[in-house]
Amino acid sequence: MTIQINFERLKQDVQDLAAIGRQQDHGIYRMAFSPGDMQAREWLQRRIQDAGLDLYVDGAANIHARLEWDGTRPSVMTGSHLDSVPRGGHLDGALGVLTGLECLRSVREQELPLRNPLESVAFTDEEGRFGHMFGSQAICGQVTPDSIMQARDLQGIRLVDAMAENGLDAMEALHAQRNPGSIQSFVELHIEQGPVLDRQRLAIGIVDGIAGLFKWQVRLIGEANHAGTTPMNMRRDAFQGLAEVAGEIPRILEEHGSPRSVATIGRVDLFPAAANVVPGRAEFSLDVRDTDPVVLDQLANACRRSLSAIARRRELMFEFDVMSELQPVKCDSGVVDTISAMCQEMGISATRMHSGAAHDTQIMSTITRAGMIFVPSKEGRSHSPSEWTAWEDIEIGANTLLNTLYRLAGDAA
Amino acid sequence: MTIQINFERLKQDVQDLAAIGRQQDHGIYRMAFSPGDMQAREWLQRRIQDAGLDLYVDGAANIHARLEWDGTRPSVMTGSHLDSVPRGGHLDGALGVLTGLECLRSVREQELPLRNPLESVAFTDEEGRFGHMFGSQAICGQVTPDSIMQARDLQGIRLVDAMAENGLDAMEALHAQRNPGSIQSFVELHIEQGPVLDRQRLAIGIVDGIAGLFKWQVRLIGEANHAGTTPMNMRRDAFQGLAEVAGEIPRILEEHGSPRSVATIGRVDLFPAAANVVPGRAEFSLDVRDTDPVVLDQLANACRRSLSAIARRRELMFEFDVMSELQPVKCDSGVVDTISAMCQEMGISATRMHSGAAHDTQIMSTITRAGMIFVPSKEGRSHSPSEWTAWEDIEIGANTLLNTLYRLAGDAA
Repeated sequence: MTIQINFERLKQDVQDLAAIGRQQDHGIYRMAFSPGDMQAREWLQRRIQDAGLDLYVDGAANIHARLEWDGTRPSVMTGSHLDSVPRGGHLDGALGVLTGLECLRSVREQELPLRNPLESVAFTDEEGRFGHMFGSQAICGQVTPDSIMQARDLQGIRLVDAMAENGLDAMEALHAQRNPGSIQSFVELHIEQGPVLDRQRLAIGIVDGIAGLFKWQVRLIGEANHAGTTPMNMRRDAFQGLAEVAGEIPRILEEHGSPRSVATIGRVDLFPAAANVVPGRAEFSLDVRDTDPVVLDQLANACRRSLSAIARRRELMFEFDVMSELQPVKCDSGVVDTISAMCQEMGISATRMHSGAAHDTQIMSTITRAGMIFVPSKEGRSHSPSEWTAWEDIEIGANTLLNTLYRLAGDAA
Repeated sequence: MTIQINFERLKQDVQDLAAIGRQQDHGIYRMAFSPGDMQAREWLQRRIQDAGLDLYVDGAANIHARLEWDGTRPSVMTGSHLDSVPRGGHLDGALGVLTGLECLRSVREQELPLRNPLESVAFTDEEGRFGHMFGSQAICGQVTPDSIMQARDLQGIRLVDAMAENGLDAMEALHAQRNPGSIQSFVELHIEQGPVLDRQRLAIGIVDGIAGLFKWQVRLIGEANHAGTTPMNMRRDAFQGLAEVAGEIPRILEEHGSPRSVATIGRVDLFPAAANVVPGRAEFSLDVRDTDPVVLDQLANACRRSLSAIARRRELMFEFDVMSELQPVKCDSGVVDTISAMCQEMGISATRMHSGAAHDTQIMSTITRAGMIFVPSKEGRSHSPSEWTAWEDIEIGANTLLNTLYRLAGDAA
């Protein structure tokens, strides 16, 4: 027997939250500690209290809804984030928070017996206005007085000031750390943010790993010259060097990657950037991801070799900065198998897949058994007002989460 | 017997003019009708009068120095421009004006007999603050009341207003048109602005043609997607399309171009331009040049075919605007042969070559027999404060111009 959430109630919550921080361009603006984010936090706290759940806000401003919390038994935790990128969509993060809340409400309402407390969290600043996944990092003990003081947004506003403005003391985040023994497991529901489920017409993605990545900022430096007066064989054209690097990407992925490898050049700046000047400098981002740390290493080596060979042959100087590196994370096989079993029992079409995007789950996996449930994203759209998941898929996702949480925490388990 | 300019006098002029409009970054700022340009104009007019030459300023504010001008015999004309790009060098344009002035001074001083009057012109706005080669276009009858009223700089300032501010009536440019019969021939001395003479250690380039060009603004439109969550085979990456186009350029030039063909992608804008987003749109400039109109046509066709094939295969939309098209210009063979003969007589190392950059000569060639003399540019640098030509090469260039003008205009001819 599987249990069910109250879909109409969840739908109303999704619609209500979607109105908070929405601006005239239809985008959601709920960057961490912005007015939209603060309003969403207030709304969520009221919803938790209205539902008769225990409300707890930790030192990192993570908002917890708790059911049967007693401080002794480890909780089964779910959750995601309320904050958005600028001009984001209404589901990224929000859906995980709201389905988590709905699961706790449903268990409470249906008076289902629990062996472990349930806990649903809205993590602070997942999107990284002030860095990266501040809330889950605080819970996992990954913030320090120094990292808190250093954290700034792109405008140079300090995290401590942004929190102080809202009556919050950022240093309290040092007290948000949880004893790993206090959490039995963690499951996050999230939209896929990619096209795979939508294309394959599957309802659920059972995430078995989260890709790691390396992100480089590369500079190729040649010589700026007049586009009319410089013969082709006397050029050191930095953009032609970049184009050749881009052309090598498929070969590098085929030779050194896995079927899950992706590589992207997303940002390009040429100098002096005039139609009639041969580019003297090309700066670009290179973002490479895979779920296997060994594969990632091989890809980094292959990219370095290719860049340096192309630069040498074209008489370009070549340098790069590592902007970020994230280790891949394997999801807990017990959690993965539980989600998988629930899908089977419920007759839901599902596939095992990885997450190419980063999520709080990968931080949480450092202290507990963690897994993720993906629901389809229409055409893979995300970080955009056109982000969309069919209501039917949201309902299936919420029920998958509910049954997974209950299998992990319920007395029947 | 060849004749000689006064090199020390010329050198002093070059140095004096180089101080006008120079700013703290060492760049020359003499954009048309800017304070620097106006100051240079005043300085030149004084120098013409000090030399005992006739001064004439036409309705387009072109400044003419004249020797033995009588309004009946056609003149042999030389000249270039005083205006610069922002942060330009001290020789581009200026050297042609000053060597022209020095040639007239030397002929006058040495009392050399003339069959035709000599005329040295400083053309208005060659660099195109308000468009393109306004002064030579006015002389050649290529401006209209409408084109004058429409002309604006990048800040939206109208040509008529910029001229009025300096006490000039732009509509007078309509009266600057010269009867083609009033000019026997035109020779412009200019720095090469390319690396060919410098690399080959040659003193003089005898220009036999000026490249034409087409300049396109191309848009490739795919789909912006998350760089982590979108598998490689589900992407429509606009930048990868652009990189493939760039990679095709060498083949296109080899198959459809001439040894003089060049093609440049100088400006690239990606959207949304984030490291973790697959580019959904790539906009870029494509600048292609050759001296042969048939070759230029073939290159345009080949570029169109390549762009459309790549776009089709990658499921990108593809569109382009023609930003400019200039027909190639052949220099007058009589003028070219005269320059060539003078170089031989003087024992100067020279080569025939084309100009990849646009010059007033290409406008002047529409009404008279025209040619150009190039002097080397150190490492091809131009439109930059580091623009440089050795004094020795300037002297050789000025003497080549003097002897060419005198061969065309002198009584010994």
